[in-house]
Amino acid sequence: MNVDPHPWAQELDSLHDHAWHRLIRGVHDRHAPARHPTLATVSPQGWPQARTVVLRAADKASRKLEIHTNSHSPKIADLVSTPVAALHVWDSGSRLQIRIQADVVIAQGAEVSHVWSAVPERSRTAYSSSSVPGELIPGALAYAAEPDASAFAVLYLHIRSMDLLHLGARHRRAQFIADPDWVGRWLVP
Amino acid sequence: MNVDPHPWAQELDSLHDHAWHRLIRGVHDRHAPARHPTLATVSPQGWPQARTVVLRAADKASRKLEIHTNSHSPKIADLVSTPVAALHVWDSGSRLQIRIQADVVIAQGAEVSHVWSAVPERSRTAYSSSSVPGELIPGALAYAAEPDASAFAVLYLHIRSMDLLHLGARHRRAQFIADPDWVGRWLVP
Repeated sequence: MNVDPHPWAQELDSLHDHAWHRLIRGVHDRHAPARHPTLATVSPQGWPQARTVVLRAADKASRKLEIHTNSHSPKIADLVSTPVAALHVWDSGSRLQIRIQADVVIAQGAEVSHVWSAVPERSRTAYSSSSVPGELIPGALAYAAEPDASAFAVLYLHIRSMDLLHLGARHRRAQFIADPDWVGRWLVP
Repeated sequence: MNVDPHPWAQELDSLHDHAWHRLIRGVHDRHAPARHPTLATVSPQGWPQARTVVLRAADKASRKLEIHTNSHSPKIADLVSTPVAALHVWDSGSRLQIRIQADVVIAQGAEVSHVWSAVPERSRTAYSSSSVPGELIPGALAYAAEPDASAFAVLYLHIRSMDLLHLGARHRRAQFIADPDWVGRWLVP
């Protein structure tokens, strides 16, 4: 008989705990799968949009995640028109798909100056107003990114629900709703 | 002087060709990054949704991709209300993010019986009507998946545009629009 490599997937509580463990690992380990989730939004035209982001913070008690972005990025316009996001992680080591639905609050300026001051110098060029992400340029390298604190935005994701799918000898899937305490239930995978 | 490991990223045509090469590799190699893209849709309530899918076909000439799904899956309801999808791949070996926008046509029944007949027996349980993906169940394993050809649906993604982001010594980003011939242009990363 084989030993189950993922015993945490058998019970709702341990499955949920494991997903948070993996999210938090993503914040602290740049090689962890949850370091680079895919953030999906809806554009002002009503189209789905998906792109890789960096997970900057994850707090289980407050059910809050944090992502940084250039405030001129199209994802800000998406979130202004539809302040809801889906966050997706495929954690191959855990054979676990994490799908998160969240309300998004955009914070900028003085409100996040304490976050800005902790952004390393070499990372600050991502937050520029002179060259705006997605803008047309005549050549591949015809952009100059000057750090600009006013182009720095923090997305706070307030999680509504998580959908966890574990691919094992038999697949298991559960949904966890923050209502406001977490309520979990099994779903057909 | 270092040799550029990704010379294909320097020109629009070779960047575009490389992305197609990687997509097609995903179809044929189950370990390739493009094997398991993230598909983003918009739910009937207007919320973004994102989940892993399997890329089943990619044809450069017709600009068409193919994905299989259970016809009872919520993603079908999403695509009936908003027949547009975003497909996302992070190809770590190529340091390349592929973002695709596509119109989606859902095909079922006799129209795709030739596709169904090529689905291996062991994979057919994913297409069941007795246990519907996302349905509540009293226990983790309280589902029984019986293959059902009528629960098999093919999503044909007709690509409108691709956004390619290469992370190199300097980042490069380009957008390619199918208009109907491909037109590429550089964007600020």
